Amino acid sequence: MTFRLPVKQDIESAAARLGEKIRHTPTLDLHADETAVPARVVLKLELLQHTGSFKARGALNSVMSLQSDAVAVTAASGGNHGAAVAWAAQRFGLGADIFVPSTSTPAKLARIRDYGANLHLVAGQVGEALAACREFAAARGVPVVHPYDTWETVCGAGTLGLEVATQVPEAELVVLGCGGGGLYAGVAAALAEDALVQPVETEQCPHLHEAIVAGRPVRHPSGGAAADSLGPPQAGRFGYETASQHGTDSVLVTEDALAAARTFMWQRLRVLAEPGACVALASLLSGQVRPRSGSTVVVVVSGGNNPVVP
Amino acid sequence: MTFRLPVKQDIESAAARLGEKIRHTPTLDLHADETAVPARVVLKLELLQHTGSFKARGALNSVMSLQSDAVAVTAASGGNHGAAVAWAAQRFGLGADIFVPSTSTPAKLARIRDYGANLHLVAGQVGEALAACREFAAARGVPVVHPYDTWETVCGAGTLGLEVATQVPEAELVVLGCGGGGLYAGVAAALAEDALVQPVETEQCPHLHEAIVAGRPVRHPSGGAAADSLGPPQAGRFGYETASQHGTDSVLVTEDALAAARTFMWQRLRVLAEPGACVALASLLSGQVRPRSGSTVVVVVSGGNNPVVP
Repeated sequence: MTFRLPVKQDIESAAARLGEKIRHTPTLDLHADETAVPARVVLKLELLQHTGSFKARGALNSVMSLQSDAVAVTAASGGNHGAAVAWAAQRFGLGADIFVPSTSTPAKLARIRDYGANLHLVAGQVGEALAACREFAAARGVPVVHPYDTWETVCGAGTLGLEVATQVPEAELVVLGCGGGGLYAGVAAALAEDALVQPVETEQCPHLHEAIVAGRPVRHPSGGAAADSLGPPQAGRFGYETASQHGTDSVLVTEDALAAARTFMWQRLRVLAEPGACVALASLLSGQVRPRSGSTVVVVVSGGNNPVVP
Repeated sequence: MTFRLPVKQDIESAAARLGEKIRHTPTLDLHADETAVPARVVLKLELLQHTGSFKARGALNSVMSLQSDAVAVTAASGGNHGAAVAWAAQRFGLGADIFVPSTSTPAKLARIRDYGANLHLVAGQVGEALAACREFAAARGVPVVHPYDTWETVCGAGTLGLEVATQVPEAELVVLGCGGGGLYAGVAAALAEDALVQPVETEQCPHLHEAIVAGRPVRHPSGGAAADSLGPPQAGRFGYETASQHGTDSVLVTEDALAAARTFMWQRLRVLAEPGACVALASLLSGQVRPRSGSTVVVVVSGGNNPVVP
């Protein structure tokens, strides 16, 4: 089968399928005097999504695209995708076996169990969890819901972009965190020529950046505070091809910029985002992404599966 | 001067004064299968307001209504109002002396200092802090910004109601937490005949309820998890007169219902609300407030000045 990137119409099909089963998450304007950014900054509060991240969109779209005789699914994940698949499976009465690196946060593990899934802890990182998941799938004949690099995942994630286009039609630029690149590829397809989409990674999880340097997705270790959400073994093909098509490189932020953005969101907005959810805002607050003066920029904030639980 | 309750037009005047200086906070729909409530439930996420609570509205309206030669203000508060006055004063270059019970949470104290105010810790509860504040004000000739029982505070708080009317015009019922009653009085005035406004208190902070029983505001101790935000010495006149006019009693929720609503918001929505912000949702989830089947109910969630800081 020939590989192709989705276009806006493909994302619209996914949106029609998902309908009201996902949350249409709200946006929040920052005031001009709250940051040194010379543009209007609008936060897309996707951490309010079911399961606390945009992953619910792709997971539900994947589960709803399964053959009708499916009785179970399996997935591997740093945590957010696992919770999303567990939620989507539960919603349709399917079993779910979720493979997670043993380094994942307790909050994410609790969430996955909470949605009724069988949780499998795997020593190592997401790459090892994916391998264990594939073995399990082959042995049991259970379909795998990939975290970021399938058509259904990307098109589901892209529905966030359609919401942005409706909520903030004047946006010239949408900045988002990039792990495997599924959200990036989907939102770029959804926004087509309407807005530029800028992926952001951390210096310690520069998978898309390294793929662009190498001319193809390459393995790279993941570290730092965002590793549990932005730490794939390597960039996915959808994300990489999207960046190539648009001639876009990812922006890399430091751990300090990430921490500062996270504190800002909590102190000024009472938004408790997980570290990986703060890279996009970090790129703006640190001045690494500079929107055109007077323009409108949308910052995606996802997810909220923090170590801190009240 | 004759006492009168504000009407919608008075709230509109306050809204015109505040303009874009406050956040127009977003709403979020719950899905029908997320609760047992047979109505559409829409959360008004006022914890995203500046300073983390609706108090910013009344504080800013009060500060903007001061005589032009004012150079400083003073206030007493369980914490949220103090932070709001500190923020409003800083915004207009005024000094601020804030009197807070020594039992207030570290998060609230940090917030007040953070906005550049002089913080005064007073042994006791809000009543004692108010007394110390009044003494200070008399000795220094500095105007007091009352937390809930002045025209400016009530009209400022009421602007939240105008936003609800615009965002969710189909709402029949608005449920909100009640401390001194300023928010309740303001929102009831803003919504006039458009929607019923239901105040909710905890069993351990039943000040409005006790006022209704007694036929006038009476002192009552404050206890439980919500005491630092819903624990005035007694209901204010604006809140009490509003309840009398509408023939409304407050609904009292248990500490358990409060905790369950708080956990629900965190687990299902990644909204980290402080305990006092959860009483309105608690009244719905516990079945004590029963909206008409098929109707739309708005639940105000304010604030987010939690003990938990990342």
